[in-house]
Amino acid sequence: MNNKPLKVELFFTYAGLTDEEVKGKTVVVIDVLRACTTACAAFMSGCREIIPVESIGDATSLLDKLDREVVLLAGERKGYKVDGFDLGNSPYEFTEEIVRGKVIILASTNGSRALVLGSAGEDCMAASFVNVSNIVERIASVGNDIAIVCSGRELNFSLEDTLCGGMIISGLGDRAESANDAAVVASKLYEERKSDLASALRNSDHGRYLVSLGFSPDIDFAAQVDSIGLIPYWDNGRLVVDDGA
Amino acid sequence: MNNKPLKVELFFTYAGLTDEEVKGKTVVVIDVLRACTTACAAFMSGCREIIPVESIGDATSLLDKLDREVVLLAGERKGYKVDGFDLGNSPYEFTEEIVRGKVIILASTNGSRALVLGSAGEDCMAASFVNVSNIVERIASVGNDIAIVCSGRELNFSLEDTLCGGMIISGLGDRAESANDAAVVASKLYEERKSDLASALRNSDHGRYLVSLGFSPDIDFAAQVDSIGLIPYWDNGRLVVDDGA
Repeated sequence: MNNKPLKVELFFTYAGLTDEEVKGKTVVVIDVLRACTTACAAFMSGCREIIPVESIGDATSLLDKLDREVVLLAGERKGYKVDGFDLGNSPYEFTEEIVRGKVIILASTNGSRALVLGSAGEDCMAASFVNVSNIVERIASVGNDIAIVCSGRELNFSLEDTLCGGMIISGLGDRAESANDAAVVASKLYEERKSDLASALRNSDHGRYLVSLGFSPDIDFAAQVDSIGLIPYWDNGRLVVDDGA
Repeated sequence: MNNKPLKVELFFTYAGLTDEEVKGKTVVVIDVLRACTTACAAFMSGCREIIPVESIGDATSLLDKLDREVVLLAGERKGYKVDGFDLGNSPYEFTEEIVRGKVIILASTNGSRALVLGSAGEDCMAASFVNVSNIVERIASVGNDIAIVCSGRELNFSLEDTLCGGMIISGLGDRAESANDAAVVASKLYEERKSDLASALRNSDHGRYLVSLGFSPDIDFAAQVDSIGLIPYWDNGRLVVDDGA
């Protein structure tokens, strides 16, 4: 690893993201609650690949072209599993029994779309607290400038994604050059909240909403820093992890 | 004025704003650099009304339906005056000699669109640092719940609008109940930066960009808290101010 400074821009949502802003960069897409956390859980349980899609329509169209025997449809709207889908967006649903060897089409409200847009970068990976240290190590080693794209919440600010983005910038230490206002704000918010991330997640807008739906365990799952070391990364239209990882 | 608590939600951009989020509320649209600052300057110089429109096409179509003698076209893209328009988006252009008695069609990149969307609220007003205390007084007196909509910058975060939003929440004191994460973050950012707002504006992403274009005086203009007491508010498709204000 050399010590070239890395320019880091952060985006609170993907709303204003243009190809120009990710071109040639390492893109880190964050969706703590819950798509990127759940993607890590799915790979941990042995799924083969995840295909993020932008809409429920895209998911069902794609299903028709694939072998139904090995494909699972996953996704949510307003936090709930989509009618007719195999799985929702809770990490606890993605057990080894269900997902081992499978291809998962993922149509979450925010993270899936952010991942599709982020894939225009030089490389693109899915991050959340469960794999944050490995993400930091990987992007430092790659050495490209970095665009951290928070998935947000229906195009609005998401505190939990921002805190995770701040943690990544903090993890890069002196190598990170925060290059936009949002990156500076994210770092500051992380420093203020890092002593109790679980509580910050639980009390965030999105956290409170998920608790109200009965998904409280998902938040505890998502708050476990470095509990899953895998790095789902974009490769030819889908997310994969390295063999044997 | 009664002391009913006011629920305050803040949006870093208008990207995710739905009619549901503004319905029945007092909407405060903020564009510090520069549309709302410039609107205040224009009314100070005696313009009769401002019609914010969402696109350059909308501006020119509307022009055809109005009396060209009394109408001025104003707007910018990437900070520069639109070709063929009478005015750009710098407050210094809107002098009494030019705008007195005129109707101004305003097609700025961010603020105009935010104002059009915000007009779905129960009431809607244009805010920036130059009129912030009067805005606080007005919204406290109206007593509706409040949606503060930062115009942002091409659907991305804008620090200067957020600081102004934080100042408004701070101004409401104990009456404000920050009801989403963005409102809490804005308040905190304002408290941290309030001792030198001019410097915060100048060093923001947008501030540095405007300085690079030669609009440095516009930033100083925008940083003058309460220099213009007027409140441009939405009335029947356009912004006006109270007579004699």
